Amino acid sequence: MATSIFYATVKKMGWHAMDQKFEALTALYLEDLYVGQRFTSGTYHMDEDRMKAFAAEFDPQPFHLDEAAAQRSIFRGLAASGWHTAAATMRLMVESLPFAGGMAGLGGEIAWPRPTRPGDTLRVESEIIEIVPSRSKPNQGIVIVRSTTLNQHGEHVQAFTAKIIVFKRPVEANSPTMNSSGS
Amino acid sequence: MATSIFYATVKKMGWHAMDQKFEALTALYLEDLYVGQRFTSGTYHMDEDRMKAFAAEFDPQPFHLDEAAAQRSIFRGLAASGWHTAAATMRLMVESLPFAGGMAGLGGEIAWPRPTRPGDTLRVESEIIEIVPSRSKPNQGIVIVRSTTLNQHGEHVQAFTAKIIVFKRPVEANSPTMNSSGS
Repeated sequence: MATSIFYATVKKMGWHAMDQKFEALTALYLEDLYVGQRFTSGTYHMDEDRMKAFAAEFDPQPFHLDEAAAQRSIFRGLAASGWHTAAATMRLMVESLPFAGGMAGLGGEIAWPRPTRPGDTLRVESEIIEIVPSRSKPNQGIVIVRSTTLNQHGEHVQAFTAKIIVFKRPVEANSPTMNSSGS
Repeated sequence: MATSIFYATVKKMGWHAMDQKFEALTALYLEDLYVGQRFTSGTYHMDEDRMKAFAAEFDPQPFHLDEAAAQRSIFRGLAASGWHTAAATMRLMVESLPFAGGMAGLGGEIAWPRPTRPGDTLRVESEIIEIVPSRSKPNQGIVIVRSTTLNQHGEHVQAFTAKIIVFKRPVEANSPTMNSSGS
């Protein structure tokens, strides 16, 4: 079975080395990216109880916590904290943008054109809109990714334009004979 | 006791009316704000277990979850998800910016110049940098607030420039005799 082979390999190589090997084979490095490249995520279900618990912890305002108060508010009904929408979006981005070394974001511009509602199913569509090689760090660059979060009706609930650090493919991943130069 | 008077008043007026009355007395409306106005928050403790749980739910990347992996990463040690820092900042903003009707943000620009570490104590300093009256909605405006999140060493871990909807003082709050015009 594939699983047995996998675990036998892990045992032989160790988790860390295995991890690096796996990443070198599947992850995307700066050279693999291009402007216009698109990524589609899976889905995130905005559970009402989780939504209220998130708001109670981080954004305890009546329109995120109480149906009646929310009806009287600018949202005209219960709305998720924008930061919950942002966090859910990050989860979907982590799962759908397989950048080598992970996604270390420097920040970006965020907008919530419409509230996320309890029971909504969110998904994220991402597109690379700019690639800026670093001048000072030759092994990395900044990738500008525009991620749009949509609900089940296709309405935009968040727009996030992120600056993400992406690494170039390390020399040893291309040239197995140069393994000794790896850190 | 003050508490008894409070509950007697609530019983007489009802929660909703009481809520409105309290807000009219203490909350800040658009007319109360000015460019350069500053607000200082309380503090938020970044607990390591909560930090890892947040990351596991919303940002499951090795440098947010595992000390050894984090040491090898660009962060050179465990770092909170930027979205956890953002959520904690929102909590501190909700407690320190008493805008009438709450803080409904349209979005803004966010940057994480330095990671938040387990055990950090965060605080937020906010300043109003622009006030834009709405052309289409005479009862509200957009207030641009720059909120800086600092750790216990005074280092900036987040900068967030937010666009927040703020309401003008309703007519009935100033003129009790016009109560019947309230919605």
